[in-house]
Amino acid sequence: MLEVLRRQRIETPSWAYGNSGTRFKVFAQPGIPRTPFEKIDDAAQVHRFTGVAPSVALHIPWDRVDDWDALARHAADAGIELGAVNPNVFQEDDYRLGSLCNPDPAVRRKATDHLLECVEIGARIGSPVLSMWVADGTNYAGQDDIRARQDRLEAALREAYDAMPESMRLLLEYKFFEPHFYTMDVPDWGTSFAQCLRLGERAQVLVDTGHHAPGTNIEFLVAILLREGRLGGFHFNSRNYADDDLMVGAADPFQLFRILHELAGAGALEPDSGVAFMLDQCHNLEPKIPALIRSIVNVQEATAKALLVDREALAAAQRDGDVLGAHAVVMDAFHTDVRPMLAGLREDMGLDPDPLAAYHRSGYQQRIESERAGGAAMGWGA
Amino acid sequence: MLEVLRRQRIETPSWAYGNSGTRFKVFAQPGIPRTPFEKIDDAAQVHRFTGVAPSVALHIPWDRVDDWDALARHAADAGIELGAVNPNVFQEDDYRLGSLCNPDPAVRRKATDHLLECVEIGARIGSPVLSMWVADGTNYAGQDDIRARQDRLEAALREAYDAMPESMRLLLEYKFFEPHFYTMDVPDWGTSFAQCLRLGERAQVLVDTGHHAPGTNIEFLVAILLREGRLGGFHFNSRNYADDDLMVGAADPFQLFRILHELAGAGALEPDSGVAFMLDQCHNLEPKIPALIRSIVNVQEATAKALLVDREALAAAQRDGDVLGAHAVVMDAFHTDVRPMLAGLREDMGLDPDPLAAYHRSGYQQRIESERAGGAAMGWGA
Amino acid sequence: MLEVLRRQRIETPSWAYGNSGTRFKVFAQPGIPRTPFEKIDDAAQVHRFTGVAPSVALHIPWDRVDDWDALARHAADAGIELGAVNPNVFQEDDYRLGSLCNPDPAVRRKATDHLLECVEIGARIGSPVLSMWVADGTNYAGQDDIRARQDRLEAALREAYDAMPESMRLLLEYKFFEPHFYTMDVPDWGTSFAQCLRLGERAQVLVDTGHHAPGTNIEFLVAILLREGRLGGFHFNSRNYADDDLMVGAADPFQLFRILHELAGAGALEPDSGVAFMLDQCHNLEPKIPALIRSIVNVQEATAKALLVDREALAAAQRDGDVLGAHAVVMDAFHTDVRPMLAGLREDMGLDPDPLAAYHRSGYQQRIESERAGGAAMGWGA
Amino acid sequence: MLEVLRRQRIETPSWAYGNSGTRFKVFAQPGIPRTPFEKIDDAAQVHRFTGVAPSVALHIPWDRVDDWDALARHAADAGIELGAVNPNVFQEDDYRLGSLCNPDPAVRRKATDHLLECVEIGARIGSPVLSMWVADGTNYAGQDDIRARQDRLEAALREAYDAMPESMRLLLEYKFFEPHFYTMDVPDWGTSFAQCLRLGERAQVLVDTGHHAPGTNIEFLVAILLREGRLGGFHFNSRNYADDDLMVGAADPFQLFRILHELAGAGALEPDSGVAFMLDQCHNLEPKIPALIRSIVNVQEATAKALLVDREALAAAQRDGDVLGAHAVVMDAFHTDVRPMLAGLREDMGLDPDPLAAYHRSGYQQRIESERAGGAAMGWGA
Repeated sequence: MLEVLRRQRIETPSWAYGNSGTRFKVFAQPGIPRTPFEKIDDAAQVHRFTGVAPSVALHIPWDRVDDWDALARHAADAGIELGAVNPNVFQEDDYRLGSLCNPDPAVRRKATDHLLECVEIGARIGSPVLSMWVADGTNYAGQDDIRARQDRLEAALREAYDAMPESMRLLLEYKFFEPHFYTMDVPDWGTSFAQCLRLGERAQVLVDTGHHAPGTNIEFLVAILLREGRLGGFHFNSRNYADDDLMVGAADPFQLFRILHELAGAGALEPDSGVAFMLDQCHNLEPKIPALIRSIVNVQEATAKALLVDREALAAAQRDGDVLGAHAVVMDAFHTDVRPMLAGLREDMGLDPDPLAAYHRSGYQQRIESERAGGAAMGWGA
Repeated sequence: MLEVLRRQRIETPSWAYGNSGTRFKVFAQPGIPRTPFEKIDDAAQVHRFTGVAPSVALHIPWDRVDDWDALARHAADAGIELGAVNPNVFQEDDYRLGSLCNPDPAVRRKATDHLLECVEIGARIGSPVLSMWVADGTNYAGQDDIRARQDRLEAALREAYDAMPESMRLLLEYKFFEPHFYTMDVPDWGTSFAQCLRLGERAQVLVDTGHHAPGTNIEFLVAILLREGRLGGFHFNSRNYADDDLMVGAADPFQLFRILHELAGAGALEPDSGVAFMLDQCHNLEPKIPALIRSIVNVQEATAKALLVDREALAAAQRDGDVLGAHAVVMDAFHTDVRPMLAGLREDMGLDPDPLAAYHRSGYQQRIESERAGGAAMGWGA
Repeated sequence: MLEVLRRQRIETPSWAYGNSGTRFKVFAQPGIPRTPFEKIDDAAQVHRFTGVAPSVALHIPWDRVDDWDALARHAADAGIELGAVNPNVFQEDDYRLGSLCNPDPAVRRKATDHLLECVEIGARIGSPVLSMWVADGTNYAGQDDIRARQDRLEAALREAYDAMPESMRLLLEYKFFEPHFYTMDVPDWGTSFAQCLRLGERAQVLVDTGHHAPGTNIEFLVAILLREGRLGGFHFNSRNYADDDLMVGAADPFQLFRILHELAGAGALEPDSGVAFMLDQCHNLEPKIPALIRSIVNVQEATAKALLVDREALAAAQRDGDVLGAHAVVMDAFHTDVRPMLAGLREDMGLDPDPLAAYHRSGYQQRIESERAGGAAMGWGA
Repeated sequence: MLEVLRRQRIETPSWAYGNSGTRFKVFAQPGIPRTPFEKIDDAAQVHRFTGVAPSVALHIPWDRVDDWDALARHAADAGIELGAVNPNVFQEDDYRLGSLCNPDPAVRRKATDHLLECVEIGARIGSPVLSMWVADGTNYAGQDDIRARQDRLEAALREAYDAMPESMRLLLEYKFFEPHFYTMDVPDWGTSFAQCLRLGERAQVLVDTGHHAPGTNIEFLVAILLREGRLGGFHFNSRNYADDDLMVGAADPFQLFRILHELAGAGALEPDSGVAFMLDQCHNLEPKIPALIRSIVNVQEATAKALLVDREALAAAQRDGDVLGAHAVVMDAFHTDVRPMLAGLREDMGLDPDPLAAYHRSGYQQRIESERAGGAAMGWGA
């Protein structure tokens, strides 16, 4: 069990190090990176103190640089890797009515070309994952043809899929709503699954834990996708209402545990299982690096609890139809305090048992707040 | 357009003629059928006054009779057909922990045998559809293994599918929650779709309009299922909160119109399109036959409005990216008062232009209230 | 802190000892009480093993007996008290269109008289609480006049309120939906609050944790009601979807903790605070007495965690605007394993440290299963 | 009935004329106002073609000008009035942890002073309404003290209330979530109602139709607030998921009709009823002025349908307990096509029968697109 925790890999997203907010206000924070290089420096700090966050996801064009090799070297020097490449097809004025699904073929061409550029960047930096969020949709009944948009989506994804090297997977994210409010072109796991089936075996569903209808049982669909061999990975975060993008484990730690329980039961916690663990959060109020460290720790704690489930006792109780007994096995694991065990593991890995305290003591935060005082802080838009 | 409306076929469910209610109370009504034969008599009245409800769905064992040929003859004499066969795998004490997904193989065998009996009944009476609602699920985390239950489900459905005559389709319904409250074994269209893909081409998804998570865009998934060739049919009703089972069109007439707009665009309103139109409602407070007539009329009105959409103008506005213009084309159709047109169609079909008034004048209600005063009224449980 | 836990009082509901289910099926269990006296015997077992469940709520007419003094003596002999009286105004055919809000004055008179009877029973048995759930509502737009129904409700509650002895409080429960699906006459805390303000100081809001719209922040409204002096008490249970009536703490243990954290901060955990702790659950699949013991333990654990919150550190972090620090104080308490502490408390109270194991060893379940084999098991309807 | 429609007053919001969007992207449109004066010009166009939008709501500081008299004269010259004043307490970096509810007294002082400034502006321009949306809240459990924040809110609103001239009302808006995702300090009508009761009679609840939990029955709470004399007005818009801010009547025209039906029944459609009709929308994809004209027309159509309800027949059916009959009275009104009647009314008022077509013909849009090509377009942030 400690070995599984030691091998766990959780990727942080470059955009979580920049400023973010709601449509009403982006609150600026001190010490925010001004370049993709500085984002990587911050990501390296999260790995330095947690030991399980050795890669960082990129968002193109936010993280576009002239010299990709330089960025990769910078990352390697900092002790981390470049991870998933996330195309951005939602921040051009051209994309008002959609990108890959736009009724205008010229816009679709532009968006598709951006995917192809991202495939190329991914191939260049050795990224294993093209992580696709299609922010397209419509706001009004009749605005566009639902089915025609689906055909356009398939055609565009097909181009990207066919261009990918064998070592790359396409993960297709879905989202219930926002930025569109009548239809989203990929609103649920079923739609993503149907598109992936058409694309091929290296197309898989990406589950963002904040992108579901109210009340959705996420661990259930995780189990179904594992059964179908189409669970590509996670964007972890937490939510009370919509795509709240809060720290994973903050809103409903029991739900996070239940998801990890399904993964543990399917052997999908191992790095080579093909299920990518990534965070996708936005820290509007709280400081970025501490929030990411806290998030990593939350995932670790939920994982440790999931690994504590006595699976033999559970299987026996389930077989016997012992409802309360089976439930109790799961709850016993959840109620266990795994913090001492994780502290021990960290010491064993040569880390401080309390990553957050160690980060605060390190002086890094003070340094970036003073060093990065000039220049334009990066955010979602840049 | 009038031709499409004239050919429309909407099946009523035998169980809507019996008493129903909530877990808190079943309010008894006068004149309720005491036998499946009397349910068919009532269904025939709905067809007599609407002209578009020529078949009735059966629920086994509620509608089980000794002599199926007698029931079929009774229906033929009354001017209607026996439609979809609905197995009931949720009302035996054995099914406490599930039927087809139960951890106990003996229970699964019993439930699967019931499916096979239903296939046989369906073959006997010439039913085109085996309409499967799997009410299985769990109430507590850990209670059973999500994935193992899915395997059991597939095995059971496989037996039924393989036993079906070529002329029969298996429609697999999904439901977000109830009667189980942690997992349902088929909670969403994606799960039903995945199971149908494994079964074969004659397995299709059944969309019950009341069985979705809050906010779900039903017309979107209808469009997706049409695109995948897996939309088997509908259980129409309406809902504000959960599986409210109110009269179709009562809670959100615009949603019903939008669903029919998708069907119209795909040519799926024609009887030979393979999309079955069925009602599945429960009339707790209102009288049964009038409620069903009203429901049929509601579907007709929504259909008529959907057929009024100027599809050329719509396509042009969509192509031009004219958001307000495209939306206006759809809204213009919705705001049109189609009641005079439908009244004319009815007269053309030799019917009274106002089916509800005609039913009230017919004296049928008074007759059944006096004739059926003795005997046990049928309900969900019998 | 241990003293607060020792003094905690959680009332169990008589109806949770009877059979229950959904509208689709009530699964019968062995050993179910056949009389209100036997329900009290079972409630006494829950208290015997937990030490904090010394009273049982009654539902009239389900628990109506000829001799109330005999029932009270029976309870006293069993070591428990009779608690809240719950009028039932939803199970008569007369109540199809409502009880206290019915358009027919004769039906309102009947329902109001039932309230007055319940006040009388409550006075007779010394009950401190008249616990009102008004199951009234409508299913269709236009069915009745929303405001007129509110006037009728006020008039009926006024009669009951005026008839209550000084020692009795009227708690007005609200529910988002079910058994009605368009309007409920008391759907939310605001409506209950507005009615209570009109009635007087001894009218307070009853919060059933399962009766809210999706996403509702229950601890927030608990804090508001405490601030207004109108929080009368709780019906505890848990829910994933609707009024699921699962065991409290089963669906979202973190939510339960947060509610108790608000209560702890307001000093509302003390028995004399005027906030009544009651369970209102239905154990459809799991055995009744063990489910209630487990529920009591869940509330105890959440309470213990809430009491562990370092309120000085919390206040300091909140004052400093330290978002992550303040959150961490709360999470630290939640992640603490309080089971050993509660086991110690139980031993200190002369109880077995593991109430569920002790119950199973006691032989009581086997005894009732054999002794109660004959006779009609009680359920919601009887 | 035509007289009621002729007297109807619907206020448009100045901010709807500026650019808006989601947190992901604000799509710029041509012809957007660059000053508050130009916003008023655009608002005047909406009134010119609809005849029922004679005032415009202001947002401070977005619409702050040096010379308020000049702005008022500009409006008068354009034929419209300045309406509600909306303080903005969510767009300063100081407000990261709240404005009126911030733990820091200096921030609360600043925010309260802004309210007082808005009261002063309102008094100066003769505004009848201070329209308060408190965007405060928290993102994480424990982040701040729920009850203390409520105390701070009351103290700040008290200052503003006491400073208001007798002719001004304070309308307190509530919102379920966003921009905060754990608590909002005024999340529901009950909290707004409780605060208004403490403030005094000229404090009333503002209902924004997009600010509710999923499934909330808005017309019900409208009826309750009317009964309590605390319905101050509306922010109309429509939503499928969250605070979607779509055009009113676009997502669920039947809901809008039901709300207006409640208002009609309470005589609250008259301008002197004290219920303010205001739009609060954001036109991310569609052109602004046409979208606002369409929205006004949508409200008019829903109003006309509500006025068509045969209230005598409705009351009779309700009294008789005729569920289907009462529902049918309401549906008959909804299904009526009121467009010809409204076209006639417009002609009678000296307007073009088709306001949108008339606007398009007027050349105004082309003029602003060319005239406003230079300069910075206004948006939410400016």
